[in-house]
Amino acid sequence: MGFSSFMGRRRVMEYIEITQEIIQELIHSKQIKALKEVFEEYNIVNLAEIVGELTIEEALFIFKVLNKNITGEIFAYLPASKQQRLISVLTGDQIKEILHNTYTDDIVDFLEELPANMVKDILKHASNQQRAVINQLLSYPDNTAGSIMTTNYVELKEEHTVMEAMSEIKKSGGKAEQVDYCFVVDLNGCLIGIVSLRDILFAPEDSVMDDLMHMDVISVKTNDDQEEASSIMRKYDITVLPVLDTSNRLVGMITADDIIDIIQDEATEDIQKMGAITPIETRYLDTRVGVIFKSRITWLLILMVTYALSSMIITSHQELLAVYPALLAFLPMLMDTTGDAGSQALAMVVRGIVVDDLTIKDFFKVVWKEFAVATICGLCLFLVNMARMILFVDSAGFAMALVVSLTMFILTVIAKLVGGVLPLIAILLKQDPASMASPIITTVCDSLSLLIYFSLAIMILGM
Amino acid sequence: MGFSSFMGRRRVMEYIEITQEIIQELIHSKQIKALKEVFEEYNIVNLAEIVGELTIEEALFIFKVLNKNITGEIFAYLPASKQQRLISVLTGDQIKEILHNTYTDDIVDFLEELPANMVKDILKHASNQQRAVINQLLSYPDNTAGSIMTTNYVELKEEHTVMEAMSEIKKSGGKAEQVDYCFVVDLNGCLIGIVSLRDILFAPEDSVMDDLMHMDVISVKTNDDQEEASSIMRKYDITVLPVLDTSNRLVGMITADDIIDIIQDEATEDIQKMGAITPIETRYLDTRVGVIFKSRITWLLILMVTYALSSMIITSHQELLAVYPALLAFLPMLMDTTGDAGSQALAMVVRGIVVDDLTIKDFFKVVWKEFAVATICGLCLFLVNMARMILFVDSAGFAMALVVSLTMFILTVIAKLVGGVLPLIAILLKQDPASMASPIITTVCDSLSLLIYFSLAIMILGM
Repeated sequence: MGFSSFMGRRRVMEYIEITQEIIQELIHSKQIKALKEVFEEYNIVNLAEIVGELTIEEALFIFKVLNKNITGEIFAYLPASKQQRLISVLTGDQIKEILHNTYTDDIVDFLEELPANMVKDILKHASNQQRAVINQLLSYPDNTAGSIMTTNYVELKEEHTVMEAMSEIKKSGGKAEQVDYCFVVDLNGCLIGIVSLRDILFAPEDSVMDDLMHMDVISVKTNDDQEEASSIMRKYDITVLPVLDTSNRLVGMITADDIIDIIQDEATEDIQKMGAITPIETRYLDTRVGVIFKSRITWLLILMVTYALSSMIITSHQELLAVYPALLAFLPMLMDTTGDAGSQALAMVVRGIVVDDLTIKDFFKVVWKEFAVATICGLCLFLVNMARMILFVDSAGFAMALVVSLTMFILTVIAKLVGGVLPLIAILLKQDPASMASPIITTVCDSLSLLIYFSLAIMILGM
Repeated sequence: MGFSSFMGRRRVMEYIEITQEIIQELIHSKQIKALKEVFEEYNIVNLAEIVGELTIEEALFIFKVLNKNITGEIFAYLPASKQQRLISVLTGDQIKEILHNTYTDDIVDFLEELPANMVKDILKHASNQQRAVINQLLSYPDNTAGSIMTTNYVELKEEHTVMEAMSEIKKSGGKAEQVDYCFVVDLNGCLIGIVSLRDILFAPEDSVMDDLMHMDVISVKTNDDQEEASSIMRKYDITVLPVLDTSNRLVGMITADDIIDIIQDEATEDIQKMGAITPIETRYLDTRVGVIFKSRITWLLILMVTYALSSMIITSHQELLAVYPALLAFLPMLMDTTGDAGSQALAMVVRGIVVDDLTIKDFFKVVWKEFAVATICGLCLFLVNMARMILFVDSAGFAMALVVSLTMFILTVIAKLVGGVLPLIAILLKQDPASMASPIITTVCDSLSLLIYFSLAIMILGM
């Protein structure tokens, strides 16, 4: 190792930032040794970013000369479009090498983006055993623990001594995604314990895994939702989660880096759903206009049509509005303020479900909390609005101010109750709390605003 | 080890779920040995949950009899209120033991919840060295890398051989939060490399850290934002991130479990801000009504007042509305649909900033994308609404349908542009994109809706 042939070693870190130009320079002048050193020494994610920008010929040159274990990693970090183009020009042997040196979960991520016939072509180059594993992983439904797990882990037996365990870790650990935690299985492959590399290292030489392992292992099943896996890893502060099949046999593990991506993606999905968008997984700038259009138009059309309900309510009260035209001026304020009040409750409860495990059991606690908060908020809005209308709005008398403010109070309470309770009902109906609630709240608040507003006007102002 | 004195070992995992009753039974019958075994064998997070439910006397008993390294962990997982009550009844020696056996970042998390005089009392029991570290950590501003890092890591020197490194890891590794990655520092304590325990284990005995370490280490500074730390760990798929001071000396590390919490919290904060709530960090059910009220009322009042603008616009067009009362019926639909169109763009761009690193540099790309999407969405809404109004709304003639649909088209384009661009402007002004955008969009869309609607009505219908 060492970097001296390329440039004084101590200086490299401080003075050279590896750029696309440097890599291209090394490729075109065929400085294979220097290239190898750069790829060994510098961060693989940054290098993959650079390789993603190279021409396909330059990238091919790199895949030809580098150590195979590095090309596997580089390949995994390339953008999907580049992976696909590379696959079509690499030789069978090169594909075999890459498959051999990439973690199964990364292979599956990449295969899922490809057309089915290309997947078949690629799987031809996999070993029989690897093909079986990949096909199994591809068969788990999206968003399950099975679909995100890797099969590259270290298995130990309970009777293994420290020495035996270490030699097993050295033997199979090179291909494992992590060896910091190893799993102990029985003769049937069922998970019976977990042991950390640290505990093995620090243990007396004559101890066996049976003594060292923790038996109260937290695990998930292949069909469990990935969100459940992530909330378990969050709750227990663990970085490795074993995945079992229905007979409790160990079939995979989920690592912290997968979970970090999932938490980020799920939050994005919730935010998109609450913003009335059909979720999109690709980067904003990479998403084509047509795809963004499709993700947005459905809800816009549905909402536009439901808002027609409010048109009908207004039309049926034309006479009232002709007598009291001033009523109109306060309509947008009423509808928007109560809509906001509902969204606030909605945002807190939807997030409470994801983060704090709120369930339908907490129904009455949520109702009570929202009712209490809504009453104080409503009272506050009532008073401020009364004062504002009486002091600053000349056209509004006391009665008109009372109608508007009272409507606001009643609607704040209703909107917050609806906003707080709807997400819980959504869980009960096995719907996503984030997606169904927002448009319903707007529609309910709008129509109720109008009905209550007009009824109060008739009662208080007279008709 | 072994669990046999309490119950047949093989059975424990399958048949016994440790409940509060079992723990209380063991405490009251003073079965100290069995208690110790339960706490060694079962998951510490679940056990801490149970201890959190015990009386203070029962909890004290547990803290008295258990191994000190376990009490530290249990303590770190207790709810804040329980921690505070325990601290007030534990002896000085017990506090010392707990401090000694808890990672510094967990101690700091706990101290930050306490009143200042209690913090002083507790720090009396810390060693001089530990006190200095804790005071340093407490001094980093909230939400910086320094405020979430731990100081319990393993430091190696570049000339260390494999043997020396292993003995250093065994010596200082017991107190480290993780030993899977060790840091290599020079004589001044500056970080020069990172080496994995796996690489040390697999290396030939005569290699030194200088050969094994990676020099292109990804790191952050103490004052960097925690969100930056989390986005770096996500980008590079790393589970350990070293933290340096301004002179590049290694002072701490951030681990994956901290980052998972931060990503979750930041997403919650964004969702709350987009729902017009001042962010709250506590669990929904644990948050008092007064606190929830305060987090919501500010925006409700601000919004209610800004909505008055729309009242003024309507009032100033009373004559127009008297001539064409049917215009009113479509107001709520127009305002809501365009509000939704704006929120959609807002949600995607706010999330794009967090997840995909959208910046002000992408301004024109965002403008172009939103303009294109908005034009198609607007056209779609225009056509559907024209058809709907002409076919199903008797009171509306062609001219009226044209006024409403044209307003909708124009406003969809404006709302999407405003929604897409505002978050980017917020970054430029060093404001949080999530918090300022939502209310501004509603206000802008509302007022513009009315102005454009009424102007088009005057132009097309005549006045």
